[in-house]
Amino acid sequence: MTENKLTHKAIQDLYSDDLAHCFGCGKNNKEGHQLKTYLIENETIAHFTPDAKYTAIPGSVYGGLIASLLDCHGTGSAAAFYCQHENILLENPLPVRCVTASLKVDFKTATPMGTKLELKGKLQKIDGRKIWVDMTLSADGIVCVTAEILAIKLK
Amino acid sequence: MTENKLTHKAIQDLYSDDLAHCFGCGKNNKEGHQLKTYLIENETIAHFTPDAKYTAIPGSVYGGLIASLLDCHGTGSAAAFYCQHENILLENPLPVRCVTASLKVDFKTATPMGTKLELKGKLQKIDGRKIWVDMTLSADGIVCVTAEILAIKLK
Repeated sequence: MTENKLTHKAIQDLYSDDLAHCFGCGKNNKEGHQLKTYLIENETIAHFTPDAKYTAIPGSVYGGLIASLLDCHGTGSAAAFYCQHENILLENPLPVRCVTASLKVDFKTATPMGTKLELKGKLQKIDGRKIWVDMTLSADGIVCVTAEILAIKLK
Repeated sequence: MTENKLTHKAIQDLYSDDLAHCFGCGKNNKEGHQLKTYLIENETIAHFTPDAKYTAIPGSVYGGLIASLLDCHGTGSAAAFYCQHENILLENPLPVRCVTASLKVDFKTATPMGTKLELKGKLQKIDGRKIWVDMTLSADGIVCVTAEILAIKLK
């Protein structure tokens, strides 16, 4: 299915309206981050430029924001990979929505403020409704953070 | 040192002014969450009531916010436990400030909106500048989330 290998719609924008209020990525949460995750071939990608208020130690991005972005990129990636795996079309409303069971975030080096961050995701494995995704967060081409999520597909 | 066993000041309010801008817990970040962690005997505690916008699936608290709170409670707890371990007085400005190397968050059940959340922390171990803290996040007496942080004391 070509549509699943290169979609121009963000996964989160395909979530059904009643499940699209997430502060991190819901299209129906006007006060939230509205993170957008795209599936391109076998990888997911998202970009985000933090506002100045999301500081940790001055000059570095707040780790809590980073964990938040990875949480939403992770559940979005899990939904995308599950659809790809099960040959489910990426269309609105998406019949697949995932939640986080476990998130591990490893901060390798400080993430600098004032630059666009790039999040990537790759499928690790799928077992029933459990989906594991490996992620990175980079700034200026340098991987600052790695992460792993175990997401569960809602029934 | 009695002062270290029951302090009425939040750990984050003792951070030196130049290191107190964190979005999650910095007293100098007026737009942030301003989480406050207290050391009571051998345990740390913090409370936080999420605003309605911090929704995930409607009715549940956004996992990204939960990770954020645990990140700040974790680094604050690590600083407090390090001081307790090294007999450093909990006073302003605190000579100890920790950052996150790794954070693992396990979501056991959905965290309900509209209620005060309680975060607790216990020291797991200290090895040089590395401090491991185990944490829980509860709502209405039920542990919804468990977490582990590896924090590093800044030089």
